[in-house]
Amino acid sequence: MSTETGHHDVLVIGAGIIGLCSAYHIKKDNPNLSILVIDRSSAPGQGDTAKSVAAVRDTFTSEVNRLFASSTIDFYKHVQSELGFNLNLELIGYLWLVSEKQFKGFEAIEDGMRKQGIRFRTFEREELTQLIPDLVLDPASEQSKIIGMDSIFKAVQGLDCGTVSPESIAKFYENEFKKMGGEFQFGIEAKSIRVDAKNRLDLPGEPYVWQDKVFRGVETNHGYISAETLVIAAGSRTPLLLDPIGIDCFVKPKKRQVFQIRGSSLDRLMTTKGFNEQNTVPFTILPKGGVYFRPVRGERSFWVGAADDIGRPFRFEEEPIAEESYYTYNIYPILSEYLPCFANLRPVNSWAGFYDINSLDSTPVIDRISNCILATGMSGSGIMKADAVGRVAAAVFKDESEAVLFGGRRISASRVGLTNRSVGKEEFVL
Amino acid sequence: MSTETGHHDVLVIGAGIIGLCSAYHIKKDNPNLSILVIDRSSAPGQGDTAKSVAAVRDTFTSEVNRLFASSTIDFYKHVQSELGFNLNLELIGYLWLVSEKQFKGFEAIEDGMRKQGIRFRTFEREELTQLIPDLVLDPASEQSKIIGMDSIFKAVQGLDCGTVSPESIAKFYENEFKKMGGEFQFGIEAKSIRVDAKNRLDLPGEPYVWQDKVFRGVETNHGYISAETLVIAAGSRTPLLLDPIGIDCFVKPKKRQVFQIRGSSLDRLMTTKGFNEQNTVPFTILPKGGVYFRPVRGERSFWVGAADDIGRPFRFEEEPIAEESYYTYNIYPILSEYLPCFANLRPVNSWAGFYDINSLDSTPVIDRISNCILATGMSGSGIMKADAVGRVAAAVFKDESEAVLFGGRRISASRVGLTNRSVGKEEFVL
Repeated sequence: MSTETGHHDVLVIGAGIIGLCSAYHIKKDNPNLSILVIDRSSAPGQGDTAKSVAAVRDTFTSEVNRLFASSTIDFYKHVQSELGFNLNLELIGYLWLVSEKQFKGFEAIEDGMRKQGIRFRTFEREELTQLIPDLVLDPASEQSKIIGMDSIFKAVQGLDCGTVSPESIAKFYENEFKKMGGEFQFGIEAKSIRVDAKNRLDLPGEPYVWQDKVFRGVETNHGYISAETLVIAAGSRTPLLLDPIGIDCFVKPKKRQVFQIRGSSLDRLMTTKGFNEQNTVPFTILPKGGVYFRPVRGERSFWVGAADDIGRPFRFEEEPIAEESYYTYNIYPILSEYLPCFANLRPVNSWAGFYDINSLDSTPVIDRISNCILATGMSGSGIMKADAVGRVAAAVFKDESEAVLFGGRRISASRVGLTNRSVGKEEFVL
Repeated sequence: MSTETGHHDVLVIGAGIIGLCSAYHIKKDNPNLSILVIDRSSAPGQGDTAKSVAAVRDTFTSEVNRLFASSTIDFYKHVQSELGFNLNLELIGYLWLVSEKQFKGFEAIEDGMRKQGIRFRTFEREELTQLIPDLVLDPASEQSKIIGMDSIFKAVQGLDCGTVSPESIAKFYENEFKKMGGEFQFGIEAKSIRVDAKNRLDLPGEPYVWQDKVFRGVETNHGYISAETLVIAAGSRTPLLLDPIGIDCFVKPKKRQVFQIRGSSLDRLMTTKGFNEQNTVPFTILPKGGVYFRPVRGERSFWVGAADDIGRPFRFEEEPIAEESYYTYNIYPILSEYLPCFANLRPVNSWAGFYDINSLDSTPVIDRISNCILATGMSGSGIMKADAVGRVAAAVFKDESEAVLFGGRRISASRVGLTNRSVGKEEFVL
């Protein structure tokens, strides 16, 4: 055991978006508590938060996900328009280009989503041809047949969706947390959680099976930090911390790769009109392979990725690197067939991070076990649910059964807990 | 990639009790298929199956667990009494010695269990004193106060519960499977599952994200074995095989340690009358620390263990060893206070294996993903549910929505699957 370097009321492990929101809301509710946030990076939001594609959507089918996402997006709107803090939130929309079969799947959930107040618009083929002249609705090449690319039957645009700057969101919560007296320590990596007996006897080998457990603190690369309550907001690293203390959070790390593409052939796509006030193409998902692209107007580039399914490993790496071959074989063939304006363009930049995948229901896991609070399992949609997750974590911290989300909607905290989980199946996984 | 050493219709990974039952029931339903079972051990049932405490109970609160356990126990009864194959099944009962608080918990679920046909009997303190003279109902020593040992308020005996010989059960299924032409290969360790494109293009880096996946076979320490269908019945090793191919089965390995205790001071306990025809003490669970003991009359010894909770790691080891200190500090203090006849006795033998813990609902996970069938998550009760698990695996193999368990009771296979799981919370975890 290493030297104790500090004691706090609350120690938050992870200064990603989830750790920041949790720290902020707990501090806001309990201004007199000393709260320390630690992170292995040198600044907030530098891990998987910074490596996301930074898009937000409220188009989820499960009530919990919708509540989490829509209240978080509403909060970001409020921060930007009412508090005047620019988050680069632009509601350019999410655009699903769908095959006939996919549209049937969408129709089955359309009514439910509408009733839940989700706003979207449907586009016919003719409109799409007109709006996005670069789009090939009926790929017919030999390659597209081999890949099994379907014709685009319609498009569905989620309207209260768009893009943000995760760095700005992180900055907002960092500032507010600091204003209240919250503390950060960077370059501090949590190595292990110290589990102990609630009532220590100072005998060898404690804690014993028959003792109640408590989590005293965290061993780090710079000594031991103790706390009354731990908040584990370590994203894809969470199982590395929880497996050794016998807590299953139902999370597996999965690599996410993003590629930046730039070229004058993309100018027309970038300045697409008719979908939004920004006069740009929405964040767009193609009908095959989960291939998506996001316009980044400030950079005159697109960020491109694909949603991985079975066959890609759950495996954590300390310094993940995006593989150019992943772009070449998995993304490019589909992207360039539907949108030939991407033809012959190679990534000018790329990066990789990790999803903290909850395969069970693709919904956050927030719970308390003894004096340890978990906030994990974002499954790739952490940024769009972060504020709600922070509020639920704060409710769990105070042992309150309900959390009040931004805008006043309420949710029972136990619904996203481990024991009496009740979140419903999410049908709209990107 | 190594040389292909064989191709089979079905390849079952693991010749533990679950692999054996799955292989047997699939073969029984499909006698013309070639089915190979591989295992790293040198004989069936030599892994965690042999390292269990070999007890069976039907006292579960969730309908699925009850169905699985009671139909499996009924099948074992049938094998032993009607087929004349001795499984050493002895219905000596499970005896829960409970505190007042624990009994209140039991009362809350008693009616439901009775309605589901579970037979049990309750014993008052006076009866217990008479039946088990060695038992201390009200531990009062300094040590028992420190440990927080409660008085024993009552006892509940599950009647259709008892002990078996896992080796004999394994032998039974092995024989029957072989009679039908089923094959085994031992000393073969599955190293990795080969994931491939359903429609291969013979291009570099397949399978791609946009290709449908299929699992062609298994790399082993003795070459590659291919199959039309894989059955993963690898117990606590399952995540080692599934994580690399991106399938989450919600299972974590947890160490289980068993200690063998022998001594003439235990003779009276061993020959306890009044609980069963065998005139022995039932498999008994103490009110603290999940400490339990099982009489092994043939050995004139008791097998003793404890149910681990939070604080013990989820960590797989190739060759786990039981730690004497685990007995000394976690089990002995409780055991010797409630039953001083264990005082001063040290383990004469010990062993360790692994649970394949499903923390979600402590219920088996059986599902098909592409051509891969999973049967895992036994959570320490595999032997008592094995026959039912095998029947559900066989139903899943044939894409049948329902499985018919021994005795004719039916269960929808999807209830124990990953996608539309519906098993209810188990309240009676040992």
